[in-house]
Amino acid sequence: MTQLVRVQNFCVSSDGFGAGEGQSRERPFGHADPADFMSWAGATASWPNRTDPGGSRGLDDYFTRDFTNNIGAEIMGRNKFGPQRGPWVDHEWKGWWGDTPPFHTPVFVLTHHLRPSFTLADTTFHFIDADPAEALQRAREAADGRDVRIGGGVATLREFLDADLVDTMHVAVVPVELDRGERLWDSPAELTDRFHLEVVPSPRGVTHHLFWRR
Amino acid sequence: MTQLVRVQNFCVSSDGFGAGEGQSRERPFGHADPADFMSWAGATASWPNRTDPGGSRGLDDYFTRDFTNNIGAEIMGRNKFGPQRGPWVDHEWKGWWGDTPPFHTPVFVLTHHLRPSFTLADTTFHFIDADPAEALQRAREAADGRDVRIGGGVATLREFLDADLVDTMHVAVVPVELDRGERLWDSPAELTDRFHLEVVPSPRGVTHHLFWRR
Repeated sequence: MTQLVRVQNFCVSSDGFGAGEGQSRERPFGHADPADFMSWAGATASWPNRTDPGGSRGLDDYFTRDFTNNIGAEIMGRNKFGPQRGPWVDHEWKGWWGDTPPFHTPVFVLTHHLRPSFTLADTTFHFIDADPAEALQRAREAADGRDVRIGGGVATLREFLDADLVDTMHVAVVPVELDRGERLWDSPAELTDRFHLEVVPSPRGVTHHLFWRR
Repeated sequence: MTQLVRVQNFCVSSDGFGAGEGQSRERPFGHADPADFMSWAGATASWPNRTDPGGSRGLDDYFTRDFTNNIGAEIMGRNKFGPQRGPWVDHEWKGWWGDTPPFHTPVFVLTHHLRPSFTLADTTFHFIDADPAEALQRAREAADGRDVRIGGGVATLREFLDADLVDTMHVAVVPVELDRGERLWDSPAELTDRFHLEVVPSPRGVTHHLFWRR
C-alpha cells in the first residue's frame, strides 16, 4: 500500500478563504463563523463531537468518517493549534479541542518556537521547527505505514502544495462569502495542471472538491 | 458506537436488476456482464484486485475503500457464493474469489445445505441454515463490535429489507439495462417511507444511492 499524503475535510468559503481575519482565542476562524464552515460535517452521524443520536448518513457522512480512515499522523501549522504568536508565554494552552482531540495519532505542529511534547487522550502533539519535507519525513515515520494528513491552516497547506508533497486533497466549499482572510485559491482550476479534479455537490449545500495527483 | 447493518457497493442496472438470468460457473451475473456492474469500482485506486498502479481517487474511490471500513462480518446468500443449487456435490468450489477473497472477515453463507467452514487467507466462510434475524445474531457476535455487511445477492438483500434489519444501504446504479433477472426494485422511491435517500451522480457515470433509516 502506498503511504499517501492527504488533505481531508478542509473547508473554504465560496470566495476561496480557509479562515477569516482576526484570529483570537474566542474566534479560531477570525471573523468567519465556525458554524458556517463546519455545520455540513456537524450534521452527520459520524461527527466526533456529536452528543445526541441521529445525524445524516448520506454523502457528507462518507467524508466525515473518512477523516481518520487509515491516517497515522497529522501535520498542522501553529495557527491551527492556537491563536498565540511568537514565543510561548505559558504552556497552559493545549489546543482548541479539549481533553480528547479528534486526531487520535501523533500531530506535528510547525513552529519556530519549540515546547515540550504532550499527550491528550490518544493524541500526542509534537512541536517542530522544520520545512515541509523534513516535517513530512518525521510524520511518515510516526504514521507507521498509514497515511499522513496535512491539517492546515491555509499557509501550511499552501507550503505543502508549493513543495508538491500532496497526493490527494478533499476541499469542501461552503456556501458563504468571507471577502477577506486566509486565501487558499482564487479558483480550484489553479490546481488542475497538477491534479485531477472531481466536483461533487452535496445534497446538503456544500460542494466537495476531490483532487488527486496526475 | 452503534453496530450497524450496512449494504455497501451493491450494484443494480438502471432498470433495477442486481443480476441477470442464467447464472453459471462462467457467468456469475447470468446474462449481465460483470464489467458493466463493476467497472466504476475497478477504475479506482482502492479496487482490491488492481494489478497496476494508478486508478482514480475521486468520488467512486470513497465508496470503493469504504467497502471494508469498520466491517466485522458479512452475510451473503448462497447464489452470491456460487452457481450450485441443491446439495453440495463436492467441496472443491470455494467461491468466485480465488485464494484471497476481498472480505477479510467471517462470512456467513445462507443455505439449507450445510458444509464445513473453511478459511482462505483472512476470510472464513461459515454455512448456516438460518432466517435473517438468526443469521444477523451470529454475524453480530463474530463482528466483535464492528458493523455487519449484507453482501447480497438480491434475494438475500430483499429478505433483510423485508425484515427491517438494514440500517444503511449504498446502491450504485450503473448505466446499463438488463430487461430481466433478479430485481431489487422498480424504483428506489419504494424505500423512502422507511429510509432517507440521497442520490449522488458520480462524474464517471454511475449514480450512488445512499439510504439510511428514518
